[in-house]
Amino acid sequence: MPPITVAHGDGIGPEIMDASLRIIQESGAALEIETIEIGEKVYLRGNTAGIDPSSWESLRRTKVFYKAPITTPQGGGFKSLNVTARKRLGLYANIRPCVAYAPYVDTKHPGMDVVVVRENEEDLYAGIEYQLSSDVMECLKLISRPGTEKIVRFAFEYAKQNGRKKVTCFTKDNIMKMTDGLFHKIYDEISAEYPDIEKEHWIVDIGAAKLADTPTAFDVIVMPNLYGDVLSDVAAQIAGSVGLAGSANVGITASMFEAIHGSAPRRAGQNLANPSGLLLGGVMMLVHIGQWEAAERIHNAWLRTLEDGVHTYDIFEPGVSREKVGTKEFASAVIARMGQKPEKLKAVSYAGFASPRREWVPNPARQFEKIEIVGVDLYMGSGAFGSKGRNPQEFGDALNRISHEGIELRMVDNRGTIVWPGGMAETFVTDSYRCRFQPVASAASQTVTHAQISALYQKVTAAGYDIVKTETLRTFDGQQGFTLAQGQ
Amino acid sequence: MPPITVAHGDGIGPEIMDASLRIIQESGAALEIETIEIGEKVYLRGNTAGIDPSSWESLRRTKVFYKAPITTPQGGGFKSLNVTARKRLGLYANIRPCVAYAPYVDTKHPGMDVVVVRENEEDLYAGIEYQLSSDVMECLKLISRPGTEKIVRFAFEYAKQNGRKKVTCFTKDNIMKMTDGLFHKIYDEISAEYPDIEKEHWIVDIGAAKLADTPTAFDVIVMPNLYGDVLSDVAAQIAGSVGLAGSANVGITASMFEAIHGSAPRRAGQNLANPSGLLLGGVMMLVHIGQWEAAERIHNAWLRTLEDGVHTYDIFEPGVSREKVGTKEFASAVIARMGQKPEKLKAVSYAGFASPRREWVPNPARQFEKIEIVGVDLYMGSGAFGSKGRNPQEFGDALNRISHEGIELRMVDNRGTIVWPGGMAETFVTDSYRCRFQPVASAASQTVTHAQISALYQKVTAAGYDIVKTETLRTFDGQQGFTLAQGQ
Repeated sequence: MPPITVAHGDGIGPEIMDASLRIIQESGAALEIETIEIGEKVYLRGNTAGIDPSSWESLRRTKVFYKAPITTPQGGGFKSLNVTARKRLGLYANIRPCVAYAPYVDTKHPGMDVVVVRENEEDLYAGIEYQLSSDVMECLKLISRPGTEKIVRFAFEYAKQNGRKKVTCFTKDNIMKMTDGLFHKIYDEISAEYPDIEKEHWIVDIGAAKLADTPTAFDVIVMPNLYGDVLSDVAAQIAGSVGLAGSANVGITASMFEAIHGSAPRRAGQNLANPSGLLLGGVMMLVHIGQWEAAERIHNAWLRTLEDGVHTYDIFEPGVSREKVGTKEFASAVIARMGQKPEKLKAVSYAGFASPRREWVPNPARQFEKIEIVGVDLYMGSGAFGSKGRNPQEFGDALNRISHEGIELRMVDNRGTIVWPGGMAETFVTDSYRCRFQPVASAASQTVTHAQISALYQKVTAAGYDIVKTETLRTFDGQQGFTLAQGQ
Repeated sequence: MPPITVAHGDGIGPEIMDASLRIIQESGAALEIETIEIGEKVYLRGNTAGIDPSSWESLRRTKVFYKAPITTPQGGGFKSLNVTARKRLGLYANIRPCVAYAPYVDTKHPGMDVVVVRENEEDLYAGIEYQLSSDVMECLKLISRPGTEKIVRFAFEYAKQNGRKKVTCFTKDNIMKMTDGLFHKIYDEISAEYPDIEKEHWIVDIGAAKLADTPTAFDVIVMPNLYGDVLSDVAAQIAGSVGLAGSANVGITASMFEAIHGSAPRRAGQNLANPSGLLLGGVMMLVHIGQWEAAERIHNAWLRTLEDGVHTYDIFEPGVSREKVGTKEFASAVIARMGQKPEKLKAVSYAGFASPRREWVPNPARQFEKIEIVGVDLYMGSGAFGSKGRNPQEFGDALNRISHEGIELRMVDNRGTIVWPGGMAETFVTDSYRCRFQPVASAASQTVTHAQISALYQKVTAAGYDIVKTETLRTFDGQQGFTLAQGQ
């Protein structure tokens, strides 16, 4: 029997986990359960991670985590357990099916059946932030080739296994041509390996509008982390109820399954909560570990229960629902229907599903033959600049007098807009400037060495300028690896 | 008569601009119109900006731009005229009212009346991107104190003048504690100056879900650039039709008014297009320049026209609409109703509106007494690292042997997750590493000088490592101006 690690969580967590496990046990699933304690109690014992080292050991052993919602105490530097688990276990894919169950559950979008596949490790969620000056904060958005390959391939493999017809990609590559451009490019590359699956790309703003208005136009959607975070919440909500959605976080060696909703402490202990989200997370877990028969029995019995109008308070609606039940009674109703299929809603079939292949090898990265440094951006903050006034023209002129071995100041910009040479008076400036140095046009070599950069650094800082950060300007086999400023 | 600059644009642009100007002229508005040519024809003459220098002169003179949609030719390095205009004219605020007109225009959200106020200059749209390695792309997200103050104050001033009750703020500050944290903090500061306006903050994912599902719960929403871009499209779409929404881009000295839809070349020249979006942009312009009586007459006549069922093809619906009309006839129908008010829809009132105050002075930035450098992050790419293997443990150990004047390697991470010392095997790595150097615990001074950084840079690069970028670690009056890595 495959071992799994189970955490009962906080708030309504224990009730809905008990209900879900009762149903899973009645389904014929074969599981050996290791129980760990996570969440509020662990946090309040002074463990800011919310999870004990012995629990990590269980997770590293079983590699499958079935997790009820937890409560993170306010303040006091408690870290999000979800973020920690995703990062430490390498759970790169977040899968969230968003399905409407009209007419049994109220929705404005009957027929909606969208799966959002969200990249889970990169983008703005790497948590890398710096204060550049008194006025300006920076966060790094990172998009990598292997990270993107993993998530895009996962989305297509998921579509293939689940008989899905289309995988859509959302990016903002008309603005972020390098980061989102890479995501889009890799989507194009990998989609070509799946000729039977329809593909399409939307700019995320228009795509989001279409999704919110006509979600039935979509099937599987793969997105970078931030867009996926926001739009999977939108999709789950407009499908009908966040109380009905489960979610999987999948990595190469480990995976985690949960409901998408929180621990709802005010509903706790009253036998009120709807266990459906966590139960469907459990169904995804059973499919994931290859126990497709149990998964199918549970999912179909659950659909039949919805259809029969046996509803918890959150989705109860007079005239549609027939019986308002508590958490335990709902679980019993699902168990009583084990082996049955829905009559009106579409039954699911996981027949023959193997545990999806996860140990794929990324395409070898393109080995660039020649990576050359062709300049360096020096970012200056409010420190030394304060004493030199805030006039960009004077600042640029003064800095321009510091040249070094044929490297010259090419331009100064403020948040991407050129202010030297020849800025416009209307341009609003902050106290953080970027100063781009490149070889003079007449220089014998148009490349720059690390020795030159370090000498330039020394010279500029010795003149009293405060360098906050540097970025080298590079070409990769002749292709420019940096953007130009607006107006450059 | 105040001068304005008008561009008739491409595709359906000329038709809807003619219709809008006819209505505006009949409203009693006093305007002196300077016409400029922008868009496709200018691009195809070889001007990659899509606008001639003489047109810039007109814009700098009139400071008010009434702009029909244009067509940007595909390929060929043509730059978005909207982005250029926003940046060069400092149009920091994008205002987009999203209103439902049920039952006259079909919508799932009757009663919706949301104004999205989007920051327009900063965030990820500064266009600053770098390739860090063969595998990894970076985009900088920048949020500034004055940039945020301007947009938040604008949102509250807008709410006050328009009799709005609530200004909501969306950020993701549970993850981006410094950038989005600053936006949220400034929202809190400025909202305190407006005790009569209700305030609330939502994490953007849940907020977006609520907005898509129950937009009637919102009034004015102020957001950083990216969230505003995506969610203003969502709001406009679910209100009923993107064909009905106008938008203002406002700066301290200049402003631009337009429809939110594009130039729809396939509909051009057929007297089919709905001029409503551009007309409502014109109403916002008239309010902005203080001609509130004309604005009110147009807006109410337009509402009455909708209500009377005089509809263009795009919103025509049998049983609801009474008469299907073309662009010109629609304009005539609005003109015929000048002076009338809607009977069922809510009439607008701009009585006594003054041109909103725009020349406010940002709060003086907090002057930090002590900005100290306490370390430096060196980012390494695939260059030199390739020859040293891809094992993070060996890499960290080797780099750790290079110490300098009491500065030591503290940690190495990959996309924010620690890999040295003591990483976990499950952590997936790319070819871009961050190496954090800080003074040894026993050092007399816990601060670092630029001379030390430049010497360290020299030493590390001389040892064959390829430094791609650097970020100094700073404290601002003792407060940490950088984030820790996951697991640090």
